[in-house]
Amino acid sequence: MRKTIVSILLVFSITITYAQYQPTWQSLDARPIPKWFTDAKFGIFIHWGLYSVPAWATNSNADGFGSNYSEWYWERLNNKKLKIHKEFVDFHNKNFGPQFHYQDFASMFKAELFDPEKWAKIFKDAGAKYVVLTSKHHDGFALWPSRESWNWNAADAGPHRDLAGDLSEAVKKTGLHMGFYYSLYEWYNPLYKQDVKKYVDEHMLPQMRDLVTRYKPDIIWPDGEWDQSDTTWRSREFLTWLYNESAVKNTVVTNDRWGGGRNHGGFNTTEYGSGNASLARPWEECRGIGESFGYNRNENLEQYQTSKQLIHMLIDIVSRGGNLLLNIGPAADGTIPVIMQQRLKDMGDWLTINGDAIYGTTAWKESPKQKDTTTFYTRKGNDLYVFVTEWKKQISIPGVMAKNVTLLGYNGKVNFSKKANNIAITAPNLVPGEHSGKDAWVYKITNAF
Amino acid sequence: MRKTIVSILLVFSITITYAQYQPTWQSLDARPIPKWFTDAKFGIFIHWGLYSVPAWATNSNADGFGSNYSEWYWERLNNKKLKIHKEFVDFHNKNFGPQFHYQDFASMFKAELFDPEKWAKIFKDAGAKYVVLTSKHHDGFALWPSRESWNWNAADAGPHRDLAGDLSEAVKKTGLHMGFYYSLYEWYNPLYKQDVKKYVDEHMLPQMRDLVTRYKPDIIWPDGEWDQSDTTWRSREFLTWLYNESAVKNTVVTNDRWGGGRNHGGFNTTEYGSGNASLARPWEECRGIGESFGYNRNENLEQYQTSKQLIHMLIDIVSRGGNLLLNIGPAADGTIPVIMQQRLKDMGDWLTINGDAIYGTTAWKESPKQKDTTTFYTRKGNDLYVFVTEWKKQISIPGVMAKNVTLLGYNGKVNFSKKANNIAITAPNLVPGEHSGKDAWVYKITNAF
Amino acid sequence: MRKTIVSILLVFSITITYAQYQPTWQSLDARPIPKWFTDAKFGIFIHWGLYSVPAWATNSNADGFGSNYSEWYWERLNNKKLKIHKEFVDFHNKNFGPQFHYQDFASMFKAELFDPEKWAKIFKDAGAKYVVLTSKHHDGFALWPSRESWNWNAADAGPHRDLAGDLSEAVKKTGLHMGFYYSLYEWYNPLYKQDVKKYVDEHMLPQMRDLVTRYKPDIIWPDGEWDQSDTTWRSREFLTWLYNESAVKNTVVTNDRWGGGRNHGGFNTTEYGSGNASLARPWEECRGIGESFGYNRNENLEQYQTSKQLIHMLIDIVSRGGNLLLNIGPAADGTIPVIMQQRLKDMGDWLTINGDAIYGTTAWKESPKQKDTTTFYTRKGNDLYVFVTEWKKQISIPGVMAKNVTLLGYNGKVNFSKKANNIAITAPNLVPGEHSGKDAWVYKITNAF
Amino acid sequence: MRKTIVSILLVFSITITYAQYQPTWQSLDARPIPKWFTDAKFGIFIHWGLYSVPAWATNSNADGFGSNYSEWYWERLNNKKLKIHKEFVDFHNKNFGPQFHYQDFASMFKAELFDPEKWAKIFKDAGAKYVVLTSKHHDGFALWPSRESWNWNAADAGPHRDLAGDLSEAVKKTGLHMGFYYSLYEWYNPLYKQDVKKYVDEHMLPQMRDLVTRYKPDIIWPDGEWDQSDTTWRSREFLTWLYNESAVKNTVVTNDRWGGGRNHGGFNTTEYGSGNASLARPWEECRGIGESFGYNRNENLEQYQTSKQLIHMLIDIVSRGGNLLLNIGPAADGTIPVIMQQRLKDMGDWLTINGDAIYGTTAWKESPKQKDTTTFYTRKGNDLYVFVTEWKKQISIPGVMAKNVTLLGYNGKVNFSKKANNIAITAPNLVPGEHSGKDAWVYKITNAF
Repeated sequence: MRKTIVSILLVFSITITYAQYQPTWQSLDARPIPKWFTDAKFGIFIHWGLYSVPAWATNSNADGFGSNYSEWYWERLNNKKLKIHKEFVDFHNKNFGPQFHYQDFASMFKAELFDPEKWAKIFKDAGAKYVVLTSKHHDGFALWPSRESWNWNAADAGPHRDLAGDLSEAVKKTGLHMGFYYSLYEWYNPLYKQDVKKYVDEHMLPQMRDLVTRYKPDIIWPDGEWDQSDTTWRSREFLTWLYNESAVKNTVVTNDRWGGGRNHGGFNTTEYGSGNASLARPWEECRGIGESFGYNRNENLEQYQTSKQLIHMLIDIVSRGGNLLLNIGPAADGTIPVIMQQRLKDMGDWLTINGDAIYGTTAWKESPKQKDTTTFYTRKGNDLYVFVTEWKKQISIPGVMAKNVTLLGYNGKVNFSKKANNIAITAPNLVPGEHSGKDAWVYKITNAF
Repeated sequence: MRKTIVSILLVFSITITYAQYQPTWQSLDARPIPKWFTDAKFGIFIHWGLYSVPAWATNSNADGFGSNYSEWYWERLNNKKLKIHKEFVDFHNKNFGPQFHYQDFASMFKAELFDPEKWAKIFKDAGAKYVVLTSKHHDGFALWPSRESWNWNAADAGPHRDLAGDLSEAVKKTGLHMGFYYSLYEWYNPLYKQDVKKYVDEHMLPQMRDLVTRYKPDIIWPDGEWDQSDTTWRSREFLTWLYNESAVKNTVVTNDRWGGGRNHGGFNTTEYGSGNASLARPWEECRGIGESFGYNRNENLEQYQTSKQLIHMLIDIVSRGGNLLLNIGPAADGTIPVIMQQRLKDMGDWLTINGDAIYGTTAWKESPKQKDTTTFYTRKGNDLYVFVTEWKKQISIPGVMAKNVTLLGYNGKVNFSKKANNIAITAPNLVPGEHSGKDAWVYKITNAF
Repeated sequence: MRKTIVSILLVFSITITYAQYQPTWQSLDARPIPKWFTDAKFGIFIHWGLYSVPAWATNSNADGFGSNYSEWYWERLNNKKLKIHKEFVDFHNKNFGPQFHYQDFASMFKAELFDPEKWAKIFKDAGAKYVVLTSKHHDGFALWPSRESWNWNAADAGPHRDLAGDLSEAVKKTGLHMGFYYSLYEWYNPLYKQDVKKYVDEHMLPQMRDLVTRYKPDIIWPDGEWDQSDTTWRSREFLTWLYNESAVKNTVVTNDRWGGGRNHGGFNTTEYGSGNASLARPWEECRGIGESFGYNRNENLEQYQTSKQLIHMLIDIVSRGGNLLLNIGPAADGTIPVIMQQRLKDMGDWLTINGDAIYGTTAWKESPKQKDTTTFYTRKGNDLYVFVTEWKKQISIPGVMAKNVTLLGYNGKVNFSKKANNIAITAPNLVPGEHSGKDAWVYKITNAF
Repeated sequence: MRKTIVSILLVFSITITYAQYQPTWQSLDARPIPKWFTDAKFGIFIHWGLYSVPAWATNSNADGFGSNYSEWYWERLNNKKLKIHKEFVDFHNKNFGPQFHYQDFASMFKAELFDPEKWAKIFKDAGAKYVVLTSKHHDGFALWPSRESWNWNAADAGPHRDLAGDLSEAVKKTGLHMGFYYSLYEWYNPLYKQDVKKYVDEHMLPQMRDLVTRYKPDIIWPDGEWDQSDTTWRSREFLTWLYNESAVKNTVVTNDRWGGGRNHGGFNTTEYGSGNASLARPWEECRGIGESFGYNRNENLEQYQTSKQLIHMLIDIVSRGGNLLLNIGPAADGTIPVIMQQRLKDMGDWLTINGDAIYGTTAWKESPKQKDTTTFYTRKGNDLYVFVTEWKKQISIPGVMAKNVTLLGYNGKVNFSKKANNIAITAPNLVPGEHSGKDAWVYKITNAF
């Protein structure tokens, strides 16, 4: 008796689920991006793989976008059309010899000092709310024991360890969301080159399903989609499965790199750019702390963003409704270069004081158009947050009310006056030591709307 | 007009071909072994791969068959049930360290001195008529650019060269037949371990077809078949294609390792044994010059067969209707250890004198049963060849006639007498220098039958 | 004629020089430390060598002083008495295997990205006035082409480059002083172990003379002297030559590690300690930015001093009359870890504003005894510099006069009052952005004495 | 009382010893070569070192003598005047890269399979009576823990084992004599290049004394002497010490490579030549089994002498009063290539039968001058040995008597006749199997003189 009832409920449930999304962009795009993601604002991107062994790129960006990305090392060695091609070949031949090929780096990728709990703690202390790891980049080398990439993955070769799995477990334990970058295309996989259909059916889709099933990630972050259409990639089919049936159907977020023109699938993405301010859809900007995603030993301090620049970047992006996915490039030995730890800690320190103005906020869509590039706004409920990235005596904000004004991280009183619909704030006399923040300050205007 | 006729002929041809063999053992076994193979008598087996890097095995055969095979190195490291397991692990840890895994040998397999023309000349001068190379052993590492084994093959990793293709081309140029050993199973391929059907369909069969299509080999020499049935391997289907449709359908030979019990498919095989004297089917005995197939640096002179032993072995096998597939284990650098070159040259020297008694012969089925293990026979047409592996003054052969008796390689007269149906040969007075042969001598009895 | 005159002058000159210092501590200690050194205040120490390849030490200092120094790696592997011995051996065996020895690191020390001009610029921009490189550490591996260490130096092995010479040239070009650390003893040199006299005569002294003659350094920084007496080392003889005859006799500075009890030879030295405040002799405190001198990949951000801590350390040391020799540990590839570049840049930025209060100053010997650890003093001529490492509204300084008071890096007026012999300064209202400094502020009191 | 007597005897003994040899060639040359050496006839030369890692030379001898010696690898890479220079550089750069230098081979020289007892047994079974190992070749890399070559020897680097000591011990245990090759000059030692006197005093002579004192060798085999005079090398002084005072003064043998023109010091030497037939002094011919002394992976079977050629070479040399020092080149892993084991075993087999005609014999100085190059003689006491390297029915020997004639290794009777002073031998009817020898046969004529 009881069993029968359960059966019926089950069928009912399946029917609903099945019906929820269809393999059309219209249907798939209608799925709301889970709120955890738009509330999170700040994530950590990790580029780690065989390219972390040579860990080198030119510092010149002579060919435009990406000449200085170390994770493109293999392609740079082969692509004779590039201006920076010769520089890569010279570096390679000098240091490894012409008989040494990219694949031979596998035995030198050891990750011997990799400590996933340590990594997770660094990310958590940075104030990040999610992590995205390159489970497989364009070279096809998988960071998990993928049976479709036997002996071309980190469990069979090099580290002989499930890097993706071990990190995923540690990250989740700290309460952060875990996700995976996954390159749809593979530069030199002969299956891909010769029979893309077979590649998609027998290699790519099984790998993506394996990732989802095995690790239950909250983000799937495809890339390298530009080479084929969404039909060839069978992207809509995959998403239908992911959103209707997979174990993470309620929480998972994806981006818009599915071959359908970067308008479909999930949140918008931009790299090293100004971000998409259309505000129509959730979006995320990603970039390295330096100028490369993969670790680049050729970068010195001048290639690294300062903590101040990174904090301002976060403010700018969040004020326009976006997320920042800030990238780190660990070394082949599994350490996170200490300069990156420093930058993350500085962001964490700033967020400890000012996080209230970042997490869970939205852009203030009606914010005054202004030339001033040192004032930014976010809102949460009825409250308005005003960021000043340069200290100023007076701040005037048109079009809002105010019940109270405070300076985050400061216990003293903040004076303000209301004139018509404008609020004028007079900055407190903040001498050194009175406020532990730096680089940017946030006023909270209670009941502004 | 002409075009139309061609079309018709084509259809006709296809129809016939299709009908020739059915996917049953009864039908497939009915295919005659191509005569070139049973005439050839002597081939060269080559075991070359990642195991040629450690190139080590115990010299003890404590676990029976194969403890001293270096090509099983990976399995020996993992198989804790073996008596010799610890010895392998100790060797490995001492010399490579516990963090170093079998897969890491790929970048050390360089083949930098590999000279396929040189190899082919050595094989030809040895008097061999065919060559069989391990295109893929149980470790799954392919010696050709197999897209099903991307980055786990010699063109992508290690040598970065199509070893199988380059050798095949050189061997064929010398007029020898070229063939490939291919392991059906792979010890640690997760596809094989988890989904054997998918493995057969998407990995194994495509690889075998690729080998045939790409290199048009005259021999397909499967192995590792014992793990599954011929139905699982889809062996009969493959053979039907191979014998009916492939480009080598008329010349190709295969062995009997197809999962059907070592009675079906092609010629019988034995290893390091006495061979199958049933004479019912063509058969081939294989073994190393030393005690391992893959190169074993642990072997010293006492582990190597002498040239005399090898010549006697060839005589014994051929006299019983078999072929000898004598194995060499090249080094990881692509050189053939000179001791192996020496053995092959000695066989070639002997065959230059005595090859007439070997190639194209059959066993003398009615040969007298005798306890004498130093007299052997072969026949070709009406002629009988009598091998003595130990010099003797008188040789008596019952049941044959004789028009003439000669000693191969000797210009002088050989005395003989006929009594009833017996022939008695009196050996000539062969002092040093009168005959360039050694180790075994052959009398040819013309018109013996 | 002319020639004769020159001769005479030459003899005259030699005579004077010869007479200047005698090989007694009394005579040698009487030599004044060249003023450039006591004026310099801030130098860069560099530990670089074979230990930069494993680049590892425990983070525990269980055995006291130096358990966490990576440059002692070799000794840690051999010294079974240490608590941390096992941890080192485990790390080594896991990652390199027991058959791999310290000497084998030589071929992995490549310095392939070493850019001496870049290094020199980093040091100059840090505000440092001199550089001290480990020309040879206790392992005996020389960073220059020392003929006494053939094939155990960076020109013959590993980098195959004169690291010491190339750096010396680049550093001098920027106007900084260049010096060399040199270990008198060598842990495992059999010549040293078996025949210390022969070692000193044929190995050590020729090496030290070679360093001086070849590179004309301004600092010789011996170490490892504790194993023998100054007589055994022939230290006094060497110094007599160095101070009387060498090309750098007028400019060279040495420390007090000559085997005579750390009271003789040159300036006093301390490591990771509070420095010697006796003020009787010039002194120098050295320490790493992290906790190890050699690069230690095991260190994370928490092991690194913050820029603030380093600036406070510099202030503390200089206020007590000492120099800070701040150490960096470059990686084996020749890069300076970017976190170290960051720390050096921060010090340089601070010194750009406040260097006037550091360089060329002396301790204020009569400074008031106080419990306040956030106020420090230096003096230069009649001026007094007051450092506050924590911002305060009022600063009161007893016992000095004042013509004027300014805040370094601040254009505004500073209010002060004179009461009796006391000066009371009222800090300006320094809101964010009004002063580019941070971490510490300096008031200059003109005509204080 | 007793003590006093002993004292007197001691003084007496020292006086005599001191007086025996003076540091003049006249005196030193007067020392008789110990009889064990002239009786020994057959020794094994071993070239083993860092050059065994690349183990490569051209097979062309375009520059004359030695272009194909692999032990000159380093020099070939540097000597731009040679025709074969480019070929070496190309090989090196292709396989190791231009940043890899000869010194870096040290960490790849592992000797992990080195088994000195096995080696000694192979030499003993070959019928050799002594062994000469390259304790140090022109690269200066020592095979023993030489403190003068710290970290440039096999105990500190690479194998981390006392190769010379371990082999010496094993060889002596089998009853063979042990000796050391030692290169006086070192191509690139800066001490040698810049201050040859210091090199000789502090490096070379201490090393040679250390070798003698430590291992008590029976042979010192200098080389590389051509660069300096015997005075510069202090050869006569060293020999005076060696012959008068060292522990091996009574047994030690040296060659004539001391800088005095190859006429002084010890036995004459030749390489790959016809030997010195002057018979005035003992002499020794050395050569490889292949064409290089050090192991050359580039050599194939055609570069190796056959066993027959080697046996004929031994006969030729011994018949002219010389010794054969046959060289082997072990691999870097410590194995002796099996082809070399085979050659040595064949010589041992032949010597087991015919050694009586080799060991302890002298040349027959009055032997008939003849054009026949297939008959050779040795004598021992009153007996004459006649070698035929090509079988012949009749052998006629003028000028000797005979009591009896036998064929070594043959039990049957040998017929001979005496006519005047000539002996005519009629060869027995030797059919296959009646004599286990081959390649050369020896008649012994008893009481020939």
